[in-house]
Amino acid sequence: MTGPRPDPPRVIIIGGGFAGLAAAKALRKSRARILLIDRRNHHVFQPLLYQVATAALSPADIATSIRRILRRSTNTSIVLAEPSGIDLAARQVRFPDGIAISYDYLILAAGATHSYFGHDNWATLAPGLKTIEDATELRRRILLAFESAEYEGSDTARRAALTFAIIGGGPTGVELAGAIKEIAAQSIPRDFRFIDTTTTRVVLLEGADRLLTAFPSNLSDRAKHDLERMGVEVRLNARVTDISPDGIRIGDEFLSVRNVFWAAGVQASQLTRTLGVPLDPSGRVLANHDLSIPGHPEVLVAGDIAAIRSPDTNQPVPGVAPAAIQMGRYAGRALARELAALAWPTPDGKPGPIPRREPFIYNDKGTMATIGRAKAVAVIGQLHFGGFLAWLLWGCIHIAFLITFRNRFLVMFSWILNWFFFSRDARLITGPAQLRIERPLDQPRDRGEPMSVPHA
Amino acid sequence: MTGPRPDPPRVIIIGGGFAGLAAAKALRKSRARILLIDRRNHHVFQPLLYQVATAALSPADIATSIRRILRRSTNTSIVLAEPSGIDLAARQVRFPDGIAISYDYLILAAGATHSYFGHDNWATLAPGLKTIEDATELRRRILLAFESAEYEGSDTARRAALTFAIIGGGPTGVELAGAIKEIAAQSIPRDFRFIDTTTTRVVLLEGADRLLTAFPSNLSDRAKHDLERMGVEVRLNARVTDISPDGIRIGDEFLSVRNVFWAAGVQASQLTRTLGVPLDPSGRVLANHDLSIPGHPEVLVAGDIAAIRSPDTNQPVPGVAPAAIQMGRYAGRALARELAALAWPTPDGKPGPIPRREPFIYNDKGTMATIGRAKAVAVIGQLHFGGFLAWLLWGCIHIAFLITFRNRFLVMFSWILNWFFFSRDARLITGPAQLRIERPLDQPRDRGEPMSVPHA
Repeated sequence: MTGPRPDPPRVIIIGGGFAGLAAAKALRKSRARILLIDRRNHHVFQPLLYQVATAALSPADIATSIRRILRRSTNTSIVLAEPSGIDLAARQVRFPDGIAISYDYLILAAGATHSYFGHDNWATLAPGLKTIEDATELRRRILLAFESAEYEGSDTARRAALTFAIIGGGPTGVELAGAIKEIAAQSIPRDFRFIDTTTTRVVLLEGADRLLTAFPSNLSDRAKHDLERMGVEVRLNARVTDISPDGIRIGDEFLSVRNVFWAAGVQASQLTRTLGVPLDPSGRVLANHDLSIPGHPEVLVAGDIAAIRSPDTNQPVPGVAPAAIQMGRYAGRALARELAALAWPTPDGKPGPIPRREPFIYNDKGTMATIGRAKAVAVIGQLHFGGFLAWLLWGCIHIAFLITFRNRFLVMFSWILNWFFFSRDARLITGPAQLRIERPLDQPRDRGEPMSVPHA
Repeated sequence: MTGPRPDPPRVIIIGGGFAGLAAAKALRKSRARILLIDRRNHHVFQPLLYQVATAALSPADIATSIRRILRRSTNTSIVLAEPSGIDLAARQVRFPDGIAISYDYLILAAGATHSYFGHDNWATLAPGLKTIEDATELRRRILLAFESAEYEGSDTARRAALTFAIIGGGPTGVELAGAIKEIAAQSIPRDFRFIDTTTTRVVLLEGADRLLTAFPSNLSDRAKHDLERMGVEVRLNARVTDISPDGIRIGDEFLSVRNVFWAAGVQASQLTRTLGVPLDPSGRVLANHDLSIPGHPEVLVAGDIAAIRSPDTNQPVPGVAPAAIQMGRYAGRALARELAALAWPTPDGKPGPIPRREPFIYNDKGTMATIGRAKAVAVIGQLHFGGFLAWLLWGCIHIAFLITFRNRFLVMFSWILNWFFFSRDARLITGPAQLRIERPLDQPRDRGEPMSVPHA
């Protein structure tokens, strides 16, 4: 005879990104009380966030309610809150209002945020792209730049309004630069009367000596070549030393630019600093091969918050969506096995043997980055390629990885319209948007003919 | 011999709503320099705004860039700005920063906003629904209400969080009440673990003795009956005397409610007060039968800003989208005829005869309001009907009136998913969203079984 079954263990998952959701799904049938904590109510498909920022997609096309995704995980409740710290010794997650929740197991998948390398005042001058709010703010700034250029009084001011600088030549920077150039050159030229939006300058700045440093160098060259053919100015070895509302400083040079976006540095969630364990310079947790925090087998880290190497290649696991999904799934499955051992005790009433955890091995299925229309680069095993085929593959894989049928359908529909009509029709400016009219509108500029489109 | 043609006249259109756009389109081929001024860059299809507020549609599904809509109107430039006043004597539109733009003709179509009947402090306590920003704010509050209810500490607080009051029983109030009840009862019950969202209370308050006062009374009764069958509490002759963060006061009664929305009063844009001409109590311009301002044939008003009666019926023209479109089109066409007379002078060099303006006659094709799934009411001529047929007609007409193919397709797709799966998947909470966790989560509530859903 066994006694009454004990309460099921409490598992807390922090983060509803790719890693946290994969963990929750792997634990769906476990006997556990699972609490998933996120500061937003929605999961964001981050790889397509730049398309929201560039008005090709609506926020809800790539974001889905976390409750909706985990509807059938009846062992999981969800809470919209932002923890302030983790007390490893007390096994508690703490919140700003003094509340603490105890856990038996913790999966920490709180993700990453921008790093301005100590220049935190740059955040408002050069916003980055990690959340839906970031994306609608970038969209507002991009669209407002053209609106203000239309009514600027001087050529200099108009030129600054029509110049965009993107700092950081990783995938996000490359995608953003290509998309902004496409908006300016293809989507909106006929919508303006006084400016020629095709003269918009897009400058992509990278501190290293090539773009897409995570890719082989032949693809870096290809991306640079493709971007330059689209009209993007690529500046390598360009280190930004200052950002002001009027422009940016690159060493001795000053670039007059009104629109600056940040795609350069990331750092792990501030939560890692409350753990009191060794971190890497980006604030990521130096985890064991089983993703656990040294000395705390009950705490696993997954996704962008984890600094680990895959034991087969001894290479660092990159901060990309497939790696986050694999880590989350690994962590969820590892806990599921241990929970099963606890839930089904041996005949003498003791828990079953706790299974040994195998090390996490990253299965690198390939890496891709898109550059523009029919232009992308891809690495799949030993294959390196670019162009239309890479772009098509990129599109199919991203559609396939979207969470719901609705998301897939809406994204595909928008892409089809974009392909045929260059349309980017989620062109909403929300939030503050008042312009000064600097141009003397009383002066007839057009003499009754269809208004001319002078070079701005 | 005629001399050089004079500069084309300057036409200013204020407002990119239904009336302003219809006017701009009617003037598309006129020899004029047209300037359309709006404080937003997008046109909003207001009749479906409540569906954005209730997470059925994304903002960009029903909002379209004004530049995009008027792309082919090459005589029209667009400026994102909010005028501060109009100087009828000087024929100028004034802006807050001291700039003024002169016009030869003005079409004033600046629309309406909420009226809190002198209680302006109610605006943050009971937001209304006129803009995309309003809609995402309502959506945030509706979704956040359920999130907070899930973690409230006391039954009283949970009950207040799960109570919604809508003030005003016109079409917007009726539609909002029905949609919130549908979310709570159909879309999300399985997404929460601690609360039973089907117990959500939705109270619709109307000051008059029936809902939808613009409709025949048999349809008012039908709407009330349909709403009550859906579980909405309809309170007639209910005048709200106070609103506080904890609830609302209706005469002697206090209703404890955390979520209050305003669908009661509208007033014309503040711009009308700068005209110095007679206004009706809602601030609308008492216009001539040709929509002109008395004494100013060069200024026409159109849409919600105009208080006029149709001379055939002597009934006031209602503040609905079809009336705004008809007025805007009338104003645009009237000016187009006059501009043509100016542009094509008689052989002796004088302008052609200015055509006389016929009075504006409102062609009332019918009125409809939707209540919920397969429930609506419609008046078409002498026909009064409700139910599935009215609802289907309502849907078809709204799809047809959307501006672009993209809008039509996206709305139809979302409605199909909603019909089959009750899905409302634009469930994004953006903006501030931090909750206090009041529920003692350390206490096991579920005993390892799938979590129970107690009555909240």
